[in-house]
Formats: sequence, structure tokens, C-alpha cells
Amino acid sequence: MSATKLQECRQHFSAQLDGVVDFWLRHSHDAEYGGFFTCIGRDGTVYDDLKYVWLQGRQVWMYCRLYRTLERFHRPEILEAAKAGGAFLRKFARMSSSSSPWKCAFCLTRDGKAVKVQRSIFSECFYIMAMDELSRVIADQDMQLEAEQMMEQLIYWVQVDPSGLGRPRLPGDVATNSMAVPMMLLCLVQQLTEGRDHEAAQKYRELGSWCVGQILQHVQRAGTAILENVSESGAELPGSAGRLQNPGHALEAGWFLLHFSAETGDKEIQKTAIEKFIELPLEYGWDREHGGLFYFLDVDGHCPTQLEWNMKLWWPHCEALIALLMAYSQTKRPELLQSFLQVYDYSFSHFPDEKNGEWFGYLSREGSTVLDFKGGPFKGFFHVPRCLLMCERLLDDLLQMHNE
Amino acid sequence: MSATKLQECRQHFSAQLDGVVDFWLRHSHDAEYGGFFTCIGRDGTVYDDLKYVWLQGRQVWMYCRLYRTLERFHRPEILEAAKAGGAFLRKFARMSSSSSPWKCAFCLTRDGKAVKVQRSIFSECFYIMAMDELSRVIADQDMQLEAEQMMEQLIYWVQVDPSGLGRPRLPGDVATNSMAVPMMLLCLVQQLTEGRDHEAAQKYRELGSWCVGQILQHVQRAGTAILENVSESGAELPGSAGRLQNPGHALEAGWFLLHFSAETGDKEIQKTAIEKFIELPLEYGWDREHGGLFYFLDVDGHCPTQLEWNMKLWWPHCEALIALLMAYSQTKRPELLQSFLQVYDYSFSHFPDEKNGEWFGYLSREGSTVLDFKGGPFKGFFHVPRCLLMCERLLDDLLQMHNE
Repeated sequence: MSATKLQECRQHFSAQLDGVVDFWLRHSHDAEYGGFFTCIGRDGTVYDDLKYVWLQGRQVWMYCRLYRTLERFHRPEILEAAKAGGAFLRKFARMSSSSSPWKCAFCLTRDGKAVKVQRSIFSECFYIMAMDELSRVIADQDMQLEAEQMMEQLIYWVQVDPSGLGRPRLPGDVATNSMAVPMMLLCLVQQLTEGRDHEAAQKYRELGSWCVGQILQHVQRAGTAILENVSESGAELPGSAGRLQNPGHALEAGWFLLHFSAETGDKEIQKTAIEKFIELPLEYGWDREHGGLFYFLDVDGHCPTQLEWNMKLWWPHCEALIALLMAYSQTKRPELLQSFLQVYDYSFSHFPDEKNGEWFGYLSREGSTVLDFKGGPFKGFFHVPRCLLMCERLLDDLLQMHNE
Repeated sequence: MSATKLQECRQHFSAQLDGVVDFWLRHSHDAEYGGFFTCIGRDGTVYDDLKYVWLQGRQVWMYCRLYRTLERFHRPEILEAAKAGGAFLRKFARMSSSSSPWKCAFCLTRDGKAVKVQRSIFSECFYIMAMDELSRVIADQDMQLEAEQMMEQLIYWVQVDPSGLGRPRLPGDVATNSMAVPMMLLCLVQQLTEGRDHEAAQKYRELGSWCVGQILQHVQRAGTAILENVSESGAELPGSAGRLQNPGHALEAGWFLLHFSAETGDKEIQKTAIEKFIELPLEYGWDREHGGLFYFLDVDGHCPTQLEWNMKLWWPHCEALIALLMAYSQTKRPELLQSFLQVYDYSFSHFPDEKNGEWFGYLSREGSTVLDFKGGPFKGFFHVPRCLLMCERLLDDLLQMHNE
């Protein structure tokens, strides 16, 4: 692979990132009530003024991460936007009506009233990510402490007693290790420990090892498949839920594990991450007929019950780009770069909206745009810019080594 | 339209009905634990042994309705299957862990343990339908009383206090009139009052009028659109939820209203049903490019946020066939028969699986099969046979008049 090709990719990621940041700066800020509009149409129009908490938290995090790590985004307007989003979250996301002071709503009205609440931990996860990252940028220790306090509650829900989440425990509902939970916690561990060495950070590192163990339980069928849901003891579960595969999720777990292995120097984890969580899901998740990654699959070839199973979503492709480029940059194995370019070609020829900016999120199996909004209940300012930022930086490092 | 064409349709519906009943008799009965398997693959294979309560109730109801109303299905094996399904439901569907003795689970393990519960009324609705219809077939007054007692609880949840359903009341969550609720209640009223004149039946008839009023609130925008969610006072709601259209649902409401108008002789309701709930949704819901009814639309042409919005599902087509044929048989307006044949041609050329029997449920916008199972979490022995049964009977009546 020539440095020219890598240089071309790098310029592409960088230009896309500028465009995407610009799109959200222009269209998503609510100057009147604070926070961010999250339902944004093809051309930037706000088609619903509901504010989804996952996306509020993610956008605060993303602005801060850009501000903190890339010189050209170290701009007052980005800092101000992050602070305004953080203030909105702190003021409105936590629900006064809940039995726990840390339970967050899933969705808010424009002026911050709770509309929906989920019986899961994810609103809280993105709240913590936002608060920790913002506290780093503005050096606010109280805010960081708040993130750690909510993290305590989260750990309690996951490891001790989930009843505070509001989901009744039913006799036929087998306790399940769903990949999203240890992945999300590992991501938070990486967030909360970065560059820190206090006592809490040490405790989180132990939690990180637990998360890795939980994630590795999803390698099933003698190492030939990543399954999305396994039993708490790591056995395969019966039925559709037990056979479910989500290739994009596996790829995302792959780069979380690579990150972990780079921090800890654990080469065994690196090998598993690449072979099982990156190469394998790319192999079975790729649509040989039309290109792109399927959203869901059934390991035995039954039809998944999710109506959207064969659609091509933006975020699995974002995760695949990060995972493959990180794997290549750690190993320099040329077939990983080859795979990266395969996903790169599909992604950049299908998702970006050259006319109005940002990426489309939801394509048909054949690759045409089925939902044309740029922001919706689950798509915001997160997967695309995180991918563009991380790939730009990985490519910068690769190109620098190339030139040395 | 020639009688020959109607005769041909009638034979087609009848033959399809035989095949569909045969499919479920062969593949869905659980001889070991009772009840019905509901997750059934293309060729009849059970791909998951979870038992969805909506579908248990619907299958009991459907078997009884066939047994009770069509001579050729008045067979012991159908009665026995209905009774076995009813016994399973009575034994396992109601959740001992709930604050109300009437709250039903959404999904059970094969041996009847609750796996999931919804914070809505629909499991209970299909339980009531099953019990009432079964009580008619086996002349069991206790069972009928049980259905009426559960109905009392349902009315309380809908009209007085929904907190027993387990959904927290949130400050930003505006009380909504969702079309599904009055439709479902109207359907139950029609079920519980058929051929009955006791006191409860009289009370239900009043509830029926209330339901009709609630359904009519969904006619919006000066009569140019049926909207799926409106405020409790019948005003349009903001955002995507307020603009949502579900053409199949509107068409189903249409024939519920036609049924009501036939019972009450209310010609104004008949006119509204046909113009607003049948012709209008068929007009805006039909895909002019590829044929078939869209699943969801946004009245202002924004993109719906449901990933499956442009898919062609079996059940809206079933509802359209019933609604159009019923409207034609009540009015003899030839354009209604024309529309019926348009939906008939699309449905019979796309949904039936000639090889393995039953209908596919989930097609892409372009009309190819995307999910190939015959039974899944929301598709069972219900919409297809109900449509085939009702259309066969409507066509019989039409042909008889033709010959007189």
C-alpha cells in the first residue's frame, strides 16, 4: 500500500470531519432552551424538538474530545457548545421521580421535561462520558466527582441489583450477559481512568478486567462466532436471542479490546480482538452480494426477527473503520489494511451526503438511502465524528512513521 | 365486474384458508407442554420455543371462530386445539408477580414461565378475545365471566388510571389517544356483545360509542389525514409521533367502524369509515412506484423514524382486503371493488408461499421477501386467516345476491 493512498484517506477523513462538525454547529444548537436538537433532517431542518439524552451526552463528549485533542477544534464556540450541553444535561437529565437520584430519562421535551425512561443503563452511561470529558476540559473536580458517583450507581445496578432500573424480575427471564453492557462499562473505564492514578482509577481498572472477561464470553461455537447474548456463566442461550449476531457491535468491542491490550500490554487479548472480534465478524457480517455490513444475523442462518436485519447502518461501518485501522496500526499486517480499504470504499461511496453534509444513517440492503435524516432517536453527533477523528489520528501516526 | 371474477377470488380465498389452517395445525401445536409454538420458520420448523401471549390468544380465538362459523372447520381437532390453547393461556398468561391479578405476560417460555411483560393492554385484550370466543364454543359461563372481569380491569386502566400497567407518569409525557387503544376496545366490545343482551352487554355498547368517538378524533387536517396519535382532547400533537400515519391501522379501524355502523344503522359513520378510514389511507398509503401499502408515513413528508417504514407487511394488506370488500358489499360502489382487486392482485402475487404454505409477512419496498418466517413475535395465526375467512364469507354473500 502506498503512502499516497493513506495520505488521500487521511485528507478525506479530515475534510469529512470538518464538514460534519460544521453541520452540527450550524443546525443542532438550541439557543433558547439550551441543549441540542437531535432530530435533524436531511438538509438540517429540525423535524422534532424532542431531545434524546443518549445523544445530548454523546454530543457534549464529542465536542470536548475534539476540543481537547485536535488543535483545529480548540475553538471557543466548540467549548461553549459543550458547556451549554453539559448544563442542560445536569439540569434536566436526572429524573426527580425515580427512586435513585442517578436514574436519567431517555428523552426530554425541548424545555427539559422527561418524556420517556428506559429500564437500562445507557442514558446514564452517556451522562457519565459527557461529565467526565467536560470536567477534563474545564478542570471541574465537582463535575468529575459527579461522574464517578453515577458510575458507582451503575456498577451497583450491573453487578449487585438491577431492580432500581425498574425492570421486573420474571421467572422465565434468564439472567443474560448482553454484550452492550460490559462494552459500555469498559468504555467508561477507559474514559474515567485516562491519565489518572487515584484510588478510584485503580478500582475501575479492576472493573475493566472484569468487563474484558465478560466480553470474551461472547466468543462461542469453538471460536467461530461472536454471539450478542450469552448466559451469565458464558453459555450459549436458546432461541433467536441466543443465536443473534450483531457484526458492528462485535467490531466495536474489537477496538475497545485493542485499546485495552495497548494499555495493559496483553498480547493475547490483542490476538483475540483481531481474530475473533474484528476479522471474524467482518467475514460473516459482510454482504457478498451488495457490499456493506448486515445489521443483524442468526448464527444458524435462520431469519433474524428484527425487521431491519438486512439494512446497512452507518455506525457498524464507523466501528469497522476504527477497528481495522487500529488493528493494522498495531500489527502492520497488510490484509488488515486491505480490509480497512474495503470498508472505506463502501462507506465513503454510500454514507456521506455531499449536498447537505453529514452522513446518511440507514440504507437498504442494496445500498439506497431509506431514512434520510441526519439525526434521529439513535443517530446523533457521535459515531461519525468519533470515527473520523480516530481514523485521522491513526493515519497521521502511520504516515509519520512512514516518513521517518 | 363479472361474477366469474368474484367466483375466482372466492375460490382463491377459500383454498388459501384451507392451506393456512393446515399449516398451523401441522406445525404450531406443542403436544408436550400445551399451547402453541409461535416462532415458525419458512418450512414449518420451530426456530424458537418462546410463546408470545398475543399470538396464543389470537390463535385460540381464530380456531374457535373458524369452528363456530364455517361448517368445514367444525372439526374435533380444531376444537381440541382451541381448548388446549385456552387451557395453557389460563394456566400461565396471568402473572402472579403483578399488582393486578389480571396483568398478563407478553412472552412465555415453552413451559409457561413469564419472560417479558409490556406496559400496555394488548396481551390482556387478546386473552379476553380468546376466552370469550372459546366460552361461546364450549358454552362455559365461568370462562365468559372471566373475560368480562378482565375487561373491567382493562376499562379501568384505559379510562381511570393506567398506573397499574407499570408505566411511570412523566412530566413531559402528554396523555395521548393512540389509535390502537380505542380500536382494540371497540373490537372487544363487538366480541363481548355479539348476540347478547344482558346488562354488561348494554354497558359495553356505551363503551363502543365512546371508542368510536375516540377513533374519529384521528381524522385530522380538515379531513385530509388519519393520524395515529392525537391528544386526549383530539388535537394534533407536535413532532414525529404527532405526524405519524399507519395506513394499515387506519384501514383496520375502517372496517371496525363499518361493522359498528351496520350494527347501529348509523349511515354517517359508514360514510366517514369509507371516505376517511378506507379510501383516504389507501390513497396516501399506496406505493405508486412498487405497489403495496407502506407501513408508516409522516403526514408532512418527513422521513418516519421507524427503520421499517417503507416495508410492505402482510397485515395492512389483510386489513385493506377486508375493509374494501366490506365497504363494497355495503354500498356496491364499483370503485371500491376496483380498489379491492388492486390490493388483491398485489397481496396474492406477493405474500403466499406456494411451496410451503402460509404467507410471508415482511417484504422490502420493492416486494421481495426480507423476513421469511411464517410466525414470529408479532405474526401468528390471526391476520391472514381472519382476512381469508371474512373475505370468503363476504364473497359468498355477494355471489348469492348476484345469483338471486
